[in-house]
Amino acid sequence: MSDIFPESHPEHPLNLIPELCRKFYDLGWATGTGGGISIKMGENYYIAPSGVQKERIMPNEIFVLNASQDVVEEPRTEKQLKISECTPLFFNAYRLRGAGACLHTHSANCVLISLLCDREFRISHIEMIKGIINNETKKALGFRDTLVVPIIENTDFEKDLTASMAECMVRYPESCAVLVRRHGMYVWSDTWQKAKGAVECIDYLMGLAIRMRTLGLEWEPKGAK
Amino acid sequence: MSDIFPESHPEHPLNLIPELCRKFYDLGWATGTGGGISIKMGENYYIAPSGVQKERIMPNEIFVLNASQDVVEEPRTEKQLKISECTPLFFNAYRLRGAGACLHTHSANCVLISLLCDREFRISHIEMIKGIINNETKKALGFRDTLVVPIIENTDFEKDLTASMAECMVRYPESCAVLVRRHGMYVWSDTWQKAKGAVECIDYLMGLAIRMRTLGLEWEPKGAK
Amino acid sequence: MSDIFPESHPEHPLNLIPELCRKFYDLGWATGTGGGISIKMGENYYIAPSGVQKERIMPNEIFVLNASQDVVEEPRTEKQLKISECTPLFFNAYRLRGAGACLHTHSANCVLISLLCDREFRISHIEMIKGIINNETKKALGFRDTLVVPIIENTDFEKDLTASMAECMVRYPESCAVLVRRHGMYVWSDTWQKAKGAVECIDYLMGLAIRMRTLGLEWEPKGAK
Amino acid sequence: MSDIFPESHPEHPLNLIPELCRKFYDLGWATGTGGGISIKMGENYYIAPSGVQKERIMPNEIFVLNASQDVVEEPRTEKQLKISECTPLFFNAYRLRGAGACLHTHSANCVLISLLCDREFRISHIEMIKGIINNETKKALGFRDTLVVPIIENTDFEKDLTASMAECMVRYPESCAVLVRRHGMYVWSDTWQKAKGAVECIDYLMGLAIRMRTLGLEWEPKGAK
Repeated sequence: MSDIFPESHPEHPLNLIPELCRKFYDLGWATGTGGGISIKMGENYYIAPSGVQKERIMPNEIFVLNASQDVVEEPRTEKQLKISECTPLFFNAYRLRGAGACLHTHSANCVLISLLCDREFRISHIEMIKGIINNETKKALGFRDTLVVPIIENTDFEKDLTASMAECMVRYPESCAVLVRRHGMYVWSDTWQKAKGAVECIDYLMGLAIRMRTLGLEWEPKGAK
Repeated sequence: MSDIFPESHPEHPLNLIPELCRKFYDLGWATGTGGGISIKMGENYYIAPSGVQKERIMPNEIFVLNASQDVVEEPRTEKQLKISECTPLFFNAYRLRGAGACLHTHSANCVLISLLCDREFRISHIEMIKGIINNETKKALGFRDTLVVPIIENTDFEKDLTASMAECMVRYPESCAVLVRRHGMYVWSDTWQKAKGAVECIDYLMGLAIRMRTLGLEWEPKGAK
Repeated sequence: MSDIFPESHPEHPLNLIPELCRKFYDLGWATGTGGGISIKMGENYYIAPSGVQKERIMPNEIFVLNASQDVVEEPRTEKQLKISECTPLFFNAYRLRGAGACLHTHSANCVLISLLCDREFRISHIEMIKGIINNETKKALGFRDTLVVPIIENTDFEKDLTASMAECMVRYPESCAVLVRRHGMYVWSDTWQKAKGAVECIDYLMGLAIRMRTLGLEWEPKGAK
Repeated sequence: MSDIFPESHPEHPLNLIPELCRKFYDLGWATGTGGGISIKMGENYYIAPSGVQKERIMPNEIFVLNASQDVVEEPRTEKQLKISECTPLFFNAYRLRGAGACLHTHSANCVLISLLCDREFRISHIEMIKGIINNETKKALGFRDTLVVPIIENTDFEKDLTASMAECMVRYPESCAVLVRRHGMYVWSDTWQKAKGAVECIDYLMGLAIRMRTLGLEWEPKGAK
């Protein structure tokens, strides 16, 4: 149901992915070639290349795939590029959730939270929780709801996360995010705008939670007003 | 008494609100569609839309209201936009204080301070306190004065803060700001310049206070020179 | 001995002061109208206005003074501007030290250091100390030297710091900086480039020292290699 | 084997060094004239000047050297510039490792890590470790590998680090980085892209490690999954 834009439009994925990659880099979420972004438009799935400086990606360096995960359009550059190793993980979000975009960050906040928690990150009674949408009911969480982000164990190769991420998504149908321990986070939603909003809210909440821990404050207060 | 600018002027609210929203986003005060800005010019009240990425707001996406809080000019765009849910809270500042601008941030500093304090945030003997104006006397606070920012409890919906914020403003006539626990802060002043100065000073003081707490330093020193 | 530039040159003080004010704002040193910058070129002393948003200062808003501290050229704008309240403090640096520029920041690092120290901030054995010039010998400090920044008490009005800052400068002839407790810092040097280098190094060292304190590390290590 | 670009190309070292210096400055790695960058193209070694504001370097201020470390092209400016004092240290990387670029930062993270460790910084089981290449095998480290960055003692003058850095590089043939205690870090690789990726990953890991220490988390977990 998303809009179809011509390539000249700034919100066409060929232009939007490089712009969002620069933003992620500036936020420290995609330094050292880390992180990744994929956006769907119409029947096309746009994915950034692997192992390149994310803040320098150009529109002609993006891969285009179809719903079967086949590359239907190579990047229009002479550079030898490989498609992102996150591709099968992005397709978990497309196939299991009908997502319109999937974002992957290496934010240090995510790594620290994954070390402070066992199987889930849980927080409640913070306004920014309302920026996150329940992926099953499609309704925004409420202020008093508990945001739950499940955590899976990291693997040696990114693609080997595919099965455990999918299994986790089945177990947590309401979640729009999966934390990968000692690694980072995947976040998806129906549109890139909602996915970007969700990752910003969740990263804010994780950064806040770390500062709360240092100050001796509870993440899920009992009897909070 | 504020100046009236043509729409081509960078300080016309249609241009200024998007610019300030981008600044707030860069400061982490308006991530994930959070936060909001309203500015009055002449008899018009300009208000940003709700639930959109604040750093991408365009001049043609702003609502214009009159003193009765009626929309007199819809955004000049085909996008389906809703007016900010902060609207009745902005009008608290316009009606109860004759404000010229009202700003709302989701700064993590505000949330943490609201968790470290009971009913008020209090700090004294820091130079930046002098950047804040007593809303009753219209004089700047002095270095030795105590800045007091009252705290109200959060509600499930933003608009439900209207009555408690108004009641708090009556109880604290000298204050130009109200903290909302676990949520953020509203700050207003006679002009957008003064409101921006106030929110920058208060956020600086809250960030400083959190670092002081970690280092074991007092916020209201007894017998400070 | 500094170069004389035409007004069209980016390093003419009318252009440079606004540029450096924007940088200081981005670093958090000049939020909420705080901080200030003065640069000398030829026989003219250029000073920013008071109580305005530092990141929005325009070239036509700068005051020009002579060596007697008289305004010889008003800002070329219709705005009603007042000269910076830091003016007599900047002239301490011009008169007592023959400075070419004087910078004033409200960095939170400075405020915290002023609360952690009694009469002096002292640190040694950090490479960045070498970026600071002994104001008496005009030689750079060495890695093993101790940087000493004296601290004076804050006053109700900025101008009332003039005498105690001057007295402190006489007592610490080697120092290119004075900390004002609970307020900020003044830094000067022969040229704006050196003053900017010094304030960047000192602020870096103060930020580092605060993190060192949190980690239990000594600022002046005994027997360090 | 690196590409040869004309001077008009943004990736020509005359343009790239100023761009990367601005980035390093924004990251706090090159404030107060600290830090440095050198890139090789063809048979030319490009090196930034010493003691200047790194974020203001212009393409005509870069020195060009040959493999014998002789200046073959002076900066094309009237300014009196000195070549970076890091030059012999950059040439350690060129001579001992056949590097294509060598980067030097004064990041506060590096200084703090050098104070928390004895002879080596060691960390394992963090995804970002995979962004660093073993300088001997030319293969990327694995998630379960331990990143080891050796530490040498600082000296009074930068050039006096030359021998101890070289000796350290011989002892740690797999490392692409050397920490200088109380000073900063040198990082090199076959290309500037890989060197930039490595310094971003290592600085991320050091910043993370400091936060982990504050939260009581281990850097080299025993029996981590």
